Amino acid sequence: MAVYSKILLAVDLSEESDQLIEKTRAIAQNNQASVTVLHVIEPLSFAYGGDVPMDLTTVQNQLDEHARTKLSVFSEKLNYPVESQQVITGHTESEIHHMAEEKGCDLIVVGSHGRHGLALLLGSTANSVLHGAPCDVLAIRVYEPEK
Amino acid sequence: MAVYSKILLAVDLSEESDQLIEKTRAIAQNNQASVTVLHVIEPLSFAYGGDVPMDLTTVQNQLDEHARTKLSVFSEKLNYPVESQQVITGHTESEIHHMAEEKGCDLIVVGSHGRHGLALLLGSTANSVLHGAPCDVLAIRVYEPEK
Repeated sequence: MAVYSKILLAVDLSEESDQLIEKTRAIAQNNQASVTVLHVIEPLSFAYGGDVPMDLTTVQNQLDEHARTKLSVFSEKLNYPVESQQVITGHTESEIHHMAEEKGCDLIVVGSHGRHGLALLLGSTANSVLHGAPCDVLAIRVYEPEK
Repeated sequence: MAVYSKILLAVDLSEESDQLIEKTRAIAQNNQASVTVLHVIEPLSFAYGGDVPMDLTTVQNQLDEHARTKLSVFSEKLNYPVESQQVITGHTESEIHHMAEEKGCDLIVVGSHGRHGLALLLGSTANSVLHGAPCDVLAIRVYEPEK
């Protein structure tokens, strides 16, 4: 029985993102669901702008371009028809929620580091995504690759 | 393709818990997974004990008994073979994590109110469960019944 019909897979494109591939593919297949893959870039200006007047457009464009390439490689590895690939600049959790609403997704899939203690206070994407999500959220436990 | 083989469904036995039934059943069926249903009671002594010396054993036992009955009704509504039903007294998130580890679960299912803003600061079970979870967590969005 299909439980989900539209899946939004949000990835940070870190090494750990690849750990989301197999499960997301299997869940999508089991549910014959459509999949949108989303990567959100936090604007440089959030981190560096404001105080120092500088034009970050060129750097930002390069980051965007780089992310698009990486996302496209990632989507290929997913080996499942991807309805759309999105690179968006903004606040991670709001953009994920916004996209889930816009596309009418019923499941958001994100990676979770399962952090606790101090890291909990520092916040995690999975955690922020959960709050205020318009639909179900599956947090897939990922592990740091061994160095 | 089965993604999960052992599901831990953690319920607070509120009215909203029933909203977890259909999806959990479908996911369990799709994966031919075993299901453990868990309800955690926070000990009265956490809230009232310490300062005033009183014996809360009788009240606690009544709460336990009440929870067991409710959980059994809930499990029946699930209409899926439940491997085990557990009522445990302790801290909600640690007991959920502990049970998931003990049973070797690969998916924890919890209800999520999708709260944000002030309620985020007040904490939510789904959020606490996410942190330090030994496995994947599916937060199913539940809605307050209309009054």
